[in-house]
Amino acid sequence: MQLQLKTWTFVDEYLKTKTGIIIPIGSTEQHGPTGLIGTDALTAEMIGRGVGEKVGALVAPTISVGMAQHHLGFAGSITLRPSTLMAVVRDTVVSLARHGFTRFFFVNGHGGNIATVTAAFSEIYAERSMERMSNQPSIKCALRNWWDSAGIKRLSQELYPVGEGSHATASEVALTWYGYPDTSPTARSPMPRISAANFPTAAWARTRISPRPNTASFSTTRPSRMWRATMRRG
Amino acid sequence: MQLQLKTWTFVDEYLKTKTGIIIPIGSTEQHGPTGLIGTDALTAEMIGRGVGEKVGALVAPTISVGMAQHHLGFAGSITLRPSTLMAVVRDTVVSLARHGFTRFFFVNGHGGNIATVTAAFSEIYAERSMERMSNQPSIKCALRNWWDSAGIKRLSQELYPVGEGSHATASEVALTWYGYPDTSPTARSPMPRISAANFPTAAWARTRISPRPNTASFSTTRPSRMWRATMRRG
Amino acid sequence: MQLQLKTWTFVDEYLKTKTGIIIPIGSTEQHGPTGLIGTDALTAEMIGRGVGEKVGALVAPTISVGMAQHHLGFAGSITLRPSTLMAVVRDTVVSLARHGFTRFFFVNGHGGNIATVTAAFSEIYAERSMERMSNQPSIKCALRNWWDSAGIKRLSQELYPVGEGSHATASEVALTWYGYPDTSPTARSPMPRISAANFPTAAWARTRISPRPNTASFSTTRPSRMWRATMRRG
Amino acid sequence: MQLQLKTWTFVDEYLKTKTGIIIPIGSTEQHGPTGLIGTDALTAEMIGRGVGEKVGALVAPTISVGMAQHHLGFAGSITLRPSTLMAVVRDTVVSLARHGFTRFFFVNGHGGNIATVTAAFSEIYAERSMERMSNQPSIKCALRNWWDSAGIKRLSQELYPVGEGSHATASEVALTWYGYPDTSPTARSPMPRISAANFPTAAWARTRISPRPNTASFSTTRPSRMWRATMRRG
Amino acid sequence: MQLQLKTWTFVDEYLKTKTGIIIPIGSTEQHGPTGLIGTDALTAEMIGRGVGEKVGALVAPTISVGMAQHHLGFAGSITLRPSTLMAVVRDTVVSLARHGFTRFFFVNGHGGNIATVTAAFSEIYAERSMERMSNQPSIKCALRNWWDSAGIKRLSQELYPVGEGSHATASEVALTWYGYPDTSPTARSPMPRISAANFPTAAWARTRISPRPNTASFSTTRPSRMWRATMRRG
Amino acid sequence: MQLQLKTWTFVDEYLKTKTGIIIPIGSTEQHGPTGLIGTDALTAEMIGRGVGEKVGALVAPTISVGMAQHHLGFAGSITLRPSTLMAVVRDTVVSLARHGFTRFFFVNGHGGNIATVTAAFSEIYAERSMERMSNQPSIKCALRNWWDSAGIKRLSQELYPVGEGSHATASEVALTWYGYPDTSPTARSPMPRISAANFPTAAWARTRISPRPNTASFSTTRPSRMWRATMRRG
Repeated sequence: MQLQLKTWTFVDEYLKTKTGIIIPIGSTEQHGPTGLIGTDALTAEMIGRGVGEKVGALVAPTISVGMAQHHLGFAGSITLRPSTLMAVVRDTVVSLARHGFTRFFFVNGHGGNIATVTAAFSEIYAERSMERMSNQPSIKCALRNWWDSAGIKRLSQELYPVGEGSHATASEVALTWYGYPDTSPTARSPMPRISAANFPTAAWARTRISPRPNTASFSTTRPSRMWRATMRRG
Repeated sequence: MQLQLKTWTFVDEYLKTKTGIIIPIGSTEQHGPTGLIGTDALTAEMIGRGVGEKVGALVAPTISVGMAQHHLGFAGSITLRPSTLMAVVRDTVVSLARHGFTRFFFVNGHGGNIATVTAAFSEIYAERSMERMSNQPSIKCALRNWWDSAGIKRLSQELYPVGEGSHATASEVALTWYGYPDTSPTARSPMPRISAANFPTAAWARTRISPRPNTASFSTTRPSRMWRATMRRG
Repeated sequence: MQLQLKTWTFVDEYLKTKTGIIIPIGSTEQHGPTGLIGTDALTAEMIGRGVGEKVGALVAPTISVGMAQHHLGFAGSITLRPSTLMAVVRDTVVSLARHGFTRFFFVNGHGGNIATVTAAFSEIYAERSMERMSNQPSIKCALRNWWDSAGIKRLSQELYPVGEGSHATASEVALTWYGYPDTSPTARSPMPRISAANFPTAAWARTRISPRPNTASFSTTRPSRMWRATMRRG
Repeated sequence: MQLQLKTWTFVDEYLKTKTGIIIPIGSTEQHGPTGLIGTDALTAEMIGRGVGEKVGALVAPTISVGMAQHHLGFAGSITLRPSTLMAVVRDTVVSLARHGFTRFFFVNGHGGNIATVTAAFSEIYAERSMERMSNQPSIKCALRNWWDSAGIKRLSQELYPVGEGSHATASEVALTWYGYPDTSPTARSPMPRISAANFPTAAWARTRISPRPNTASFSTTRPSRMWRATMRRG
Repeated sequence: MQLQLKTWTFVDEYLKTKTGIIIPIGSTEQHGPTGLIGTDALTAEMIGRGVGEKVGALVAPTISVGMAQHHLGFAGSITLRPSTLMAVVRDTVVSLARHGFTRFFFVNGHGGNIATVTAAFSEIYAERSMERMSNQPSIKCALRNWWDSAGIKRLSQELYPVGEGSHATASEVALTWYGYPDTSPTARSPMPRISAANFPTAAWARTRISPRPNTASFSTTRPSRMWRATMRRG
Repeated sequence: MQLQLKTWTFVDEYLKTKTGIIIPIGSTEQHGPTGLIGTDALTAEMIGRGVGEKVGALVAPTISVGMAQHHLGFAGSITLRPSTLMAVVRDTVVSLARHGFTRFFFVNGHGGNIATVTAAFSEIYAERSMERMSNQPSIKCALRNWWDSAGIKRLSQELYPVGEGSHATASEVALTWYGYPDTSPTARSPMPRISAANFPTAAWARTRISPRPNTASFSTTRPSRMWRATMRRG
């Protein structure tokens, strides 16, 4: 149930029985020569919306640009400064709280967002507690990384026993290929070769980007298994 | 060509011949009892991406939440404070400028964004000119409201000679029904009636929301004509 | 009735019957080789105070420096960043609202202020609506460009059928010569010639600055007609 | 030499031989039942411009609203938050520094501005020194309270041996009556009586407002002597 | 080697061979009825200075107040908003970077600081990378929680097999008693009893505060073992 | 009575009879080749705590880094921008006000803090008065420079009739040697000679730094007299 595809009268009804909302948050940043720049936002959006359907919760528009300062060396990466991202999270929550929402569940697709979004929650709480807004209903914000559930971790280890890495992981790239099949390697021209010269800081890139998305063994059956795992409990 | 669906190496190549990028910007706010909350973001995104395909330009992720303070009285509306939206625009532009982009073309779906986004451009320019960053390449930002082109205006007047209004216009609602046919009235349960009691400030709502989306005469052929008009020059 | 020339007890009395106030806002920026740097502030102040006398309204001190980033290439131009100007407008309005003022009428002398001041109004409204300050009296801010009234437009076209331009217009320069006759060309040394070499960006300057103020045909009778027009309704 | 009444080409010439500028800064706040709300801005402006004439220095537009939080209890008082006033001072200085001004001489009419403007200078210096802008010309800001010169102090003691006070002093009220004779007591209706009931915090007001402006002995010859003293050295 | 107890000439010498500095950061917040309000700052300071002695590194003044919004319900707790703490970290790092420091090692005593300080590091990096300050030496910031080393964890489990908790842990309380023996229970009056009525949110408090500091079995030999463990590698 | 060495239940009791708190604030900056970098913070802390003991008042953690922009040319100096320091003061005061503290007494060790801390107080008051927080208890902040008491001034003149200076004064250096005897000249290696070449801006340094700390006549009996003077009334 995407908020964007509903009317305000629908939301008004919804609030009579539920006060939670899902907010996907990702990043727009390089994911190696084969991963999509939108990987973190696309996966958070897919999974956030999938969860919303399963539990009957509204899903806010995706925050597609996050904290990606450490990727600015690669063309196409966009970052919000932490202070900007905190203001975005704050305004989103405060706007919705005004209507009666009290639980804000951020489905996160990017490790680099964790610190800033957590700090944003504290900023919201601090603003309210410093003002002694005792007449305001209590609100609660939570951040959940989709890759942290036990089921996803199990499947990652099964499918990609080596080379999962911590950025541009095989798991997340698989999900984007599942969701956007036109972008998968079989649908595209031959893999570009990574040349050290192409990287602003090649050493850093090598350690941060999973090599697996390049490999032929990354078959198309795996993406759909990964997707199904994200929709399972635990 | 969505930036999110490309790799950083693709962007690196792109920048060798082009330095412009399209950035759709909308709003998440009530559009009356029949219009979608996401109308302004969905239309800006559709049109921004459509233009991108036609001219071979990269399209950044949509900024889905804009300046909608005046709609906060209606459930589901989200606003960024102008100062927050200015920071978002600033960081987006500065990140991309770092890679070599120099022309930023914001396709706008919401009248309420115009002042703030224009002020954001001035903030960016002021920051750079106050620092005498003479060694920085010159950048240029532009905002274009999709409904302001002559072709769209002509078609609006032809299709909806009365009742177009200035918010939740028949034109923009038509576009969302074209793009998201599941949300059109024929696909949904009977129209809810607008009751003054449902509006926080009913008088304001009546003058700001086009009555036409409720009418039976709003046929399904019109949305597709509206869409095609947005893709025409002038 | 200038606020600066009254006592606080006078204002206290005034608020028993009226809650509106006029706030002139201009800019401090180049107006070509013959127009005054203070043109936009001086005209807004003259007209704001003139209107105040006619309608018996208090007039706040003029905000003389506005958003003039695009003129920083010319010596003597001063700009506030949009974020700074927004804070100035916000604090001015909030201070006066505390005393019971509820209507804030900004008489504007500079096109470059429109976006920022409009965004400032939204920032004020957003701050209040996000906090649900339901116990606060409602306030309303409006911006009016003096040159937009029908009477002024008619006279501009009559007096300066060609060469009015959009910056350093013949109309506004005429007003400053009416208000500050010592600065008019007849009172000064011969006109300096515009030499392209004097302009940081000469092409830009040529298109933005009305050529008329240089011409001999710009007689002294016209300034007073222009002034009288600003004091007429419509 | 008011900057507002000059052209940019004049300023361009000026900068070939001088790089200093005078910036009057005052406040808009109650000055008791007889002193003008604009006293601090009007006196700073009169004296700043007078000094400018004597030494041949340009004078920027007056910053008429300052830090007057402690007067918000009285109708008509306006304050900028210190953070806002610091941004105004910063942008003014940085704009002018861009053209080649290097000495900024603030003529101050309000004790309540001293801390904030001094902090603003440090903010400007800190911004520059933290960035190691070694390629920027050095700038220097100074604040001078007009009432602190030895000559003014001597005259104050001679003319108003008792009752000068520290706010709404006899000296500053005298200057406004000299500059704006229509506002002097002889030109106005009988003095209003200060009633404790009229004051939000009457005790505070009694200790902060000089009683002398009410007295008959405050003759009209004294204002002109006070004015002449401000134009003398030392 | 405390920075505060050295001269600037000493630091000048130090920078010829070393460019790292230790910055203790803690919090000022309730630690239950027996733990000290300064626990997190005192432990970070003790350990930061101890490490500094061992490795011959300078130690900056302790940042004693951190992000403790979630403890504001308890008297004596002080918090900085995350945005404020980020500015403090930023200014500290930028000041020291100006002298030639390039490695900033924050020894942290408070879990609630982690997100905000990490976001502050990103803010610093983002500011620098957005400006393309390619002529600036590269800097690196790191945060290390003292309780996360393997040796400390082992000892915690040995000494306090139950009841260590995650806030006001037995380990950290032990350290403060070691460092400030006058504050230990044997030096004080009988333990106050925790009564639910004393807690603003008693349920929350019970789950967050380790019960062990109250117990008699918390002998004085343990604090010194804990201290020695913090000074060991691994 | 240091807040850091107390429990929250102690503070809860304290607030039943007292609502004041002492907050030492200093600076971390060069104090010449012999004075300690921490001089201003160490002296404020010593004196703040000493006063706290005498009057039975709680003493908050020392704010050790202040506004020292003008010392950034010397290694080891750290500054907060005025805007950052204002946020720190604001958050500290607002946190404590939430618990019921109403009087905030800053014991200051650094002249460069005066303007910024005073502006911070105004920012706090402005925030509260602009919001018409009429239901909030009134708070009051005061700043007191320890060296401004009559007794200290008398002793300074007696002990150091020449060479006291205004920065790195003999008085404050004496106090640090009293409090931290290991850092006194007798405990250290021979005095380094000040060479003009060592100073970024040697002329400035010479006029700002008291020469006396270098002299042999600066005996160890004087520090203790200075300390006792700070603990006397008047």
